[in-house]
Amino acid sequence: MSKSYHDKQIKLFALNSNRGLAEKISEETGIPLGKMSSRQFSDGEIQINIEETVRGIDVYIIQSTSFPVNNHLMELLIMIDACRRASANSINIVMPYFGYARQDRVARSREPITAKLVANMLVKAGVNRVLTLDLHAAQIQGFFDIPVDNLYTIPLFAEYCVSLGLKGSDVVVVSPKNSGIKRARSLAEYLDSPIAIIDHEEDDAGRQKGYIIGEVEGKTALLIDDILNTGVTFSEASKTLQKEGATDIYAFASHGLFANEAAEKLNASPIKEIVVTDSVATKEETPINIKYLSASELIADALIRIHERKPVSPLFAYQKAKKANTKESE
Amino acid sequence: MSKSYHDKQIKLFALNSNRGLAEKISEETGIPLGKMSSRQFSDGEIQINIEETVRGIDVYIIQSTSFPVNNHLMELLIMIDACRRASANSINIVMPYFGYARQDRVARSREPITAKLVANMLVKAGVNRVLTLDLHAAQIQGFFDIPVDNLYTIPLFAEYCVSLGLKGSDVVVVSPKNSGIKRARSLAEYLDSPIAIIDHEEDDAGRQKGYIIGEVEGKTALLIDDILNTGVTFSEASKTLQKEGATDIYAFASHGLFANEAAEKLNASPIKEIVVTDSVATKEETPINIKYLSASELIADALIRIHERKPVSPLFAYQKAKKANTKESE
Amino acid sequence: MSKSYHDKQIKLFALNSNRGLAEKISEETGIPLGKMSSRQFSDGEIQINIEETVRGIDVYIIQSTSFPVNNHLMELLIMIDACRRASANSINIVMPYFGYARQDRVARSREPITAKLVANMLVKAGVNRVLTLDLHAAQIQGFFDIPVDNLYTIPLFAEYCVSLGLKGSDVVVVSPKNSGIKRARSLAEYLDSPIAIIDHEEDDAGRQKGYIIGEVEGKTALLIDDILNTGVTFSEASKTLQKEGATDIYAFASHGLFANEAAEKLNASPIKEIVVTDSVATKEETPINIKYLSASELIADALIRIHERKPVSPLFAYQKAKKANTKESE
Amino acid sequence: MSKSYHDKQIKLFALNSNRGLAEKISEETGIPLGKMSSRQFSDGEIQINIEETVRGIDVYIIQSTSFPVNNHLMELLIMIDACRRASANSINIVMPYFGYARQDRVARSREPITAKLVANMLVKAGVNRVLTLDLHAAQIQGFFDIPVDNLYTIPLFAEYCVSLGLKGSDVVVVSPKNSGIKRARSLAEYLDSPIAIIDHEEDDAGRQKGYIIGEVEGKTALLIDDILNTGVTFSEASKTLQKEGATDIYAFASHGLFANEAAEKLNASPIKEIVVTDSVATKEETPINIKYLSASELIADALIRIHERKPVSPLFAYQKAKKANTKESE
Amino acid sequence: MSKSYHDKQIKLFALNSNRGLAEKISEETGIPLGKMSSRQFSDGEIQINIEETVRGIDVYIIQSTSFPVNNHLMELLIMIDACRRASANSINIVMPYFGYARQDRVARSREPITAKLVANMLVKAGVNRVLTLDLHAAQIQGFFDIPVDNLYTIPLFAEYCVSLGLKGSDVVVVSPKNSGIKRARSLAEYLDSPIAIIDHEEDDAGRQKGYIIGEVEGKTALLIDDILNTGVTFSEASKTLQKEGATDIYAFASHGLFANEAAEKLNASPIKEIVVTDSVATKEETPINIKYLSASELIADALIRIHERKPVSPLFAYQKAKKANTKESE
Amino acid sequence: MSKSYHDKQIKLFALNSNRGLAEKISEETGIPLGKMSSRQFSDGEIQINIEETVRGIDVYIIQSTSFPVNNHLMELLIMIDACRRASANSINIVMPYFGYARQDRVARSREPITAKLVANMLVKAGVNRVLTLDLHAAQIQGFFDIPVDNLYTIPLFAEYCVSLGLKGSDVVVVSPKNSGIKRARSLAEYLDSPIAIIDHEEDDAGRQKGYIIGEVEGKTALLIDDILNTGVTFSEASKTLQKEGATDIYAFASHGLFANEAAEKLNASPIKEIVVTDSVATKEETPINIKYLSASELIADALIRIHERKPVSPLFAYQKAKKANTKESE
Repeated sequence: MSKSYHDKQIKLFALNSNRGLAEKISEETGIPLGKMSSRQFSDGEIQINIEETVRGIDVYIIQSTSFPVNNHLMELLIMIDACRRASANSINIVMPYFGYARQDRVARSREPITAKLVANMLVKAGVNRVLTLDLHAAQIQGFFDIPVDNLYTIPLFAEYCVSLGLKGSDVVVVSPKNSGIKRARSLAEYLDSPIAIIDHEEDDAGRQKGYIIGEVEGKTALLIDDILNTGVTFSEASKTLQKEGATDIYAFASHGLFANEAAEKLNASPIKEIVVTDSVATKEETPINIKYLSASELIADALIRIHERKPVSPLFAYQKAKKANTKESE
Repeated sequence: MSKSYHDKQIKLFALNSNRGLAEKISEETGIPLGKMSSRQFSDGEIQINIEETVRGIDVYIIQSTSFPVNNHLMELLIMIDACRRASANSINIVMPYFGYARQDRVARSREPITAKLVANMLVKAGVNRVLTLDLHAAQIQGFFDIPVDNLYTIPLFAEYCVSLGLKGSDVVVVSPKNSGIKRARSLAEYLDSPIAIIDHEEDDAGRQKGYIIGEVEGKTALLIDDILNTGVTFSEASKTLQKEGATDIYAFASHGLFANEAAEKLNASPIKEIVVTDSVATKEETPINIKYLSASELIADALIRIHERKPVSPLFAYQKAKKANTKESE
Repeated sequence: MSKSYHDKQIKLFALNSNRGLAEKISEETGIPLGKMSSRQFSDGEIQINIEETVRGIDVYIIQSTSFPVNNHLMELLIMIDACRRASANSINIVMPYFGYARQDRVARSREPITAKLVANMLVKAGVNRVLTLDLHAAQIQGFFDIPVDNLYTIPLFAEYCVSLGLKGSDVVVVSPKNSGIKRARSLAEYLDSPIAIIDHEEDDAGRQKGYIIGEVEGKTALLIDDILNTGVTFSEASKTLQKEGATDIYAFASHGLFANEAAEKLNASPIKEIVVTDSVATKEETPINIKYLSASELIADALIRIHERKPVSPLFAYQKAKKANTKESE
Repeated sequence: MSKSYHDKQIKLFALNSNRGLAEKISEETGIPLGKMSSRQFSDGEIQINIEETVRGIDVYIIQSTSFPVNNHLMELLIMIDACRRASANSINIVMPYFGYARQDRVARSREPITAKLVANMLVKAGVNRVLTLDLHAAQIQGFFDIPVDNLYTIPLFAEYCVSLGLKGSDVVVVSPKNSGIKRARSLAEYLDSPIAIIDHEEDDAGRQKGYIIGEVEGKTALLIDDILNTGVTFSEASKTLQKEGATDIYAFASHGLFANEAAEKLNASPIKEIVVTDSVATKEETPINIKYLSASELIADALIRIHERKPVSPLFAYQKAKKANTKESE
Repeated sequence: MSKSYHDKQIKLFALNSNRGLAEKISEETGIPLGKMSSRQFSDGEIQINIEETVRGIDVYIIQSTSFPVNNHLMELLIMIDACRRASANSINIVMPYFGYARQDRVARSREPITAKLVANMLVKAGVNRVLTLDLHAAQIQGFFDIPVDNLYTIPLFAEYCVSLGLKGSDVVVVSPKNSGIKRARSLAEYLDSPIAIIDHEEDDAGRQKGYIIGEVEGKTALLIDDILNTGVTFSEASKTLQKEGATDIYAFASHGLFANEAAEKLNASPIKEIVVTDSVATKEETPINIKYLSASELIADALIRIHERKPVSPLFAYQKAKKANTKESE
Repeated sequence: MSKSYHDKQIKLFALNSNRGLAEKISEETGIPLGKMSSRQFSDGEIQINIEETVRGIDVYIIQSTSFPVNNHLMELLIMIDACRRASANSINIVMPYFGYARQDRVARSREPITAKLVANMLVKAGVNRVLTLDLHAAQIQGFFDIPVDNLYTIPLFAEYCVSLGLKGSDVVVVSPKNSGIKRARSLAEYLDSPIAIIDHEEDDAGRQKGYIIGEVEGKTALLIDDILNTGVTFSEASKTLQKEGATDIYAFASHGLFANEAAEKLNASPIKEIVVTDSVATKEETPINIKYLSASELIADALIRIHERKPVSPLFAYQKAKKANTKESE
């Protein structure tokens, strides 16, 4: 029997990017998905109709701006515009995957900062609050002046690792590139394991051959990154780890896009298991050894806490407690 | 030998929607297209690199937001962001076709006004001026508070009609739907011809069978509309006109999208010639009896006038002068 | 005995343009008009004093920006400013007549778009929501990014027509000018009647002699327009209709201004009855055969629905239901 | 022979409040008044047409927002909107009289601050710079974040007093109310004279009978205020001064409105001469003993300095130099 | 036993400028001070941590922007930013002393208007409402477009005067400078006493020797000003008053800064008592004969009224009633 | 003989944080420092007077927001306000050190993002462009929507290293903490050297004992960080490096604050030389073995390029060219 949420002041709407996740969040919260239609005309224009009143309602719109990102982003912006004109009390967006997040700085002259552009568009359209999951860079919160709640995936991954017995000094958490070291450090904290980095010359351009800084020989290596796009980074990193004597290799990514035949590359790599959340509903082929951990419970908890004006901070803390318990039982 | 424009303060950039038109505008003005790249990653994200300086430059970006509209719109917004951060002196966009223009009002409860959303996005991204062609509704100019120069296609069509001898009382200008009557009236002014309308019950929804208000029997009928999308409107209207005794039937539209197998429908209709401008570079099949009138000279003239701080208004008047002359020679 | 509304969170204030309508809305809703004074000094400056607290209150201000439009608009803006500084919870304006709405596009070079200017002024002053009646152009909703509820007068007119037996094929709904065709089409839907248009060459300038497109001979003609200003349009149209054989002629307009000796012209015309709503309290003479239909019930319903966070959309639908019933009884 | 200004980058436009002053400024600067029309329809709506190009031009619009203030203010706002949409390079307004300036603070609960509202309206409409004359309160400059140049009238008055031999200890400069003491002090500095104040109990409300603080007996009294509206303040003050033994009495005001039969009251008072600038073109009767000092030269100088990017500050200093010279010749 | 406020929707936070006053307000309202830390790093940067949830809460932050003003202002801005990002429902600031208020106009060319800058910073950071005490100029309310409640200190001072028997014609209320005359007039109203002014040539620059306008001989003189900074103004004024025959001299100031060895100067002056509120917690030495009147009850009342959506206006009226009673007993 | 810049359209102003650097930039560019005064009153309020005209001028204001950061930031904001009101054509700020940059994300619940707050304040005050040096995080550029030119210090450091022969495989570039790895990688590119990291458990909190990931034994270690604040990070890192067998140890930091007795700690460490730029003029004691590399030439070049509308990008490339040459000569 499904749950039912008591407060009629809140409504949930799912757009087209990840209907499966939206349904799970709906089940977890007991709030049904609102009636609406969103269709694309023959000329590519999106038309949205909200088929129940949102006047005075706190609206939560669930949409990952994953592939095709421009359609999903415009669909979100149009839905926000419709809600604002229809007198919603507040417009809250749940973006488990925040597209364009990697374009967060000017790396070369005359580059845009598209992640900021996206933030500006959302706010100008009328968003009052953003709930997201493992932003590519924490600074993107500062691209907004409205509240942004950024949930973490590391506790989910840590819990799973501990359940597999992957912890302590036999394990090494490996960042497959320089810029991901903070994420590796954070997972390592949960597991009481050391870290290593795969460093590359001429970072960000023509990156192929990296070398390892740190000790991996004889250890189970846990690669960790936020976005698994084409699979090249993990695939190359795993080969380097294998060559340097890592035993089992796992790969963890918050967001699994699997573009550009990633599945093929990953299937051919020595990675034992690829763990991602369900933030993105990819239409691409996924690798054989994939494991999906659902973020729906985490998002549902946060959403209800936000609506009930309770702090979201306990969600960041609870896995640390579990870790502590785990330690005591060692 | 190509023209060359003297003033280095201006640069022209073409995005991906309509490179052919951009090249014509470049030739007409003598201003070369600036170097840049815009590519789409495997995850659908667009990356733009401007490969020459725009610091202190008045930038003109040419982009029709036609199919796929969301990609073309985001490409435009990202380019604007890049120009702003790269210290362009002013950012001017040339949008021969303004996508989403038909979503310009709330027709049913809880609808968005996407044309206004698009205007807001453009301005928030950093646009200083818009140059466009035959906006779906003149009120869309008011969606902006920055200058919007809206060029007219009617004089182009009128000139072409006169060149074919289509004028006077043997001709009737027909609006294929109620809402287009002003456009028909305007063309009729140039040709000294009467007008007629094809009226439909339950306008805007399930429109199929219309009936004619006005006299068409024995006349050459000139259908006119702003957007030719699926071809249904023109195709049905031409059949009605044929049934009511119109002799030859021409169809004029400012923007030819030809979505949803429009060519097939139009080829099967009694329309003798379908006249559109090159505002949209469609990837769809076009009908056999199509005639493209280029808007490039008009746009080029306007662009240079804008840059040289000369009034654009003479462009609206010059065809009227030609018409006057034509009258005198009659 | 007058009604009394239970919720003390809402207050109604009437400014000086149309106190009669405000009092009717007050009676319909059971909400008393708030105490305030608004007077004009000898130098023309308006001074407003709100004489009861509005702190934390949802304020609804009733004002038509009819003649003298600039005084009424400034009075409204000043009242909004006073409410904002006095900590009103929300500021909602009820503008049955939206002045300057006809200046909604750039018709000639270097024209302002005053309707947009007015929208910008209202929003900048602090308005949170607009409730209006039969906007001159639906696109004006898009001049705002706040919620705008635009009520329709056509159902009021249709109900009245049906009560007089004016419906079916013996009746023709006539737009006295091209641009009003949508309004005629809409009324015709309710009455199951055909439409006709009075077309003019050189529309919008020196319009005097029109000719009819469509069939009117032997029919009762219902002229319809949104704004009845000087009466010239209706007066000339009625003469043309009479000449072309229309039997009885009625004229419907949402907003009756009656400027410039309109009464005299209309009294001299063959119009049998002139029907307007009470959106405007004119100080001009009104024609002898005038019929006022009050919009107060419609506005009161909408106002209460808005305040109670209920959808306003049913108000747009209810007359259609009556029409359906009417049909069944035929 | 009239002057002619060399730079075609600047245009001057005069609205309807004070055409005489605008023509003087035009003569002083050698810049002709631009062609435009501004008329009021029968329904009170203002329509503006700019009849020459303003594209890329620095536009200066001359308008005092004097009686009827709401019409003059709206005319100004509409003109600003027209200039912005017509691509003016910058929009500068010359407001010799700034209407609503006295509503600059909340004196009683729930009052608006209309002077701030006016500032917000002007900026939102698109103004880039304000040139004004003797603002009622200097803090109003802070109601704007754009540059505001506030010219002073005191040097004009001082020069005139010196020319009449009104200076030194035989003269007393009198503020007719508490709040004007700074203005009296400032004029007294130029004349090396003492000051006095006419104090009232319950200031600002029912002010009739004041008493003098300071010495006036046997002296020539120079009353000074910024706005001469109904004449009551000056008239009552002059009677008090006469009763307390002042010999000759002059009255100086920057802005002469003369509302509410001010002329009659002033003619019946013992004031010898009433000196005002031509900032306001009143349609009311003016008193017999009126003396107009034109501010046109001062404004013209400031306008040219602003346009030529030269400091305006010397205009504030030059009369002090004259005063210094005067002193030396004593 | 301390009071306890029933509504958990409100929280009070005290920053570092005036913890004593914040604690009194907390006691008066029964609302405990929220847990937070604010510390300054070795490089001068302030770090704030809010240690309890503010999600959905109406936050009131108490901070006087007194010396060191820049630190206190930045601390306030940072706290506002933290509250906004932490999803506070509304952010209300209680600024008993509004620093930089004297920089409220351009006195000399190219001066900033720092009071407006401060207002802009507060609003941009996210403030929804300001509660302050005796603003230097009432026009500063107009620097904001959000609600500003400006409490008066004059009734506090009047009540104290009456308690000492200081009222009627034996007393004279004296403004120590031209610009303070309104404040003197206001206190005089409560006491039914006359006023006097100490006028200075070349006001605002090198002010030392003033002379008295009005009668002080044989009277008790009550000097009144808003800000007591270095004590020079009061000290010099008191000497002038003594010389002109005033008997006892009291000095009242809303805000006591006591900078630059003010205590020393004031101790050496003939002032009998110096009365200030506790709006500023100075770290400087205070004069021997100082009397603090607490504004905490007034602020607490206002704060609760604001939160409970009751009018604040009665707070401005209640002392007038007491005065009326006082009169009757005379 | 000093240089002199030809264009009078540009003016340079130095505020109080780093007058020495400003004078060097003035010398390098040939643009004299504009006349102004900025003083702090006894109550801590800053008063600024610009003593020459800035009307129509492109103003460049040089200010590092180093200790005392709040004073320096407010001084900058006030100067911006003054320039805007004084009609500067554009306001450009040169912030070699951007204070509060480390508060660029929400690390713990309910933290502010003060770096974004600072960006918002600057833009709201009126800044048009920012020129800065080695921002703490590249994403801070995205906190602005105006152009931000971020100059790099790594080429300066690389050039200096090469001049000392510090390059190739005998050298290792070491990041003293995880988050600085990109900076280490970047310097290593210039020197063709490997990198290492000093990793810490519980990063960001109670960091003391780190361990090295990578090889340092027998190598010259070059520590690199952006901000040298208290010296603890470098001091601890150098001890770890010494223990692990590094031979010579150098430390490079873009910004040398030397707070909290940094000099003492660094003097006691095994660091051979501490290299910083002159972005910050510290008032603290500096270590004995300090080496200042001036950023003035780099900033001066950028400033002139910006003003002359030339691309700044060549400044990012020129050291790479030198490196290339160096390579060829090896």
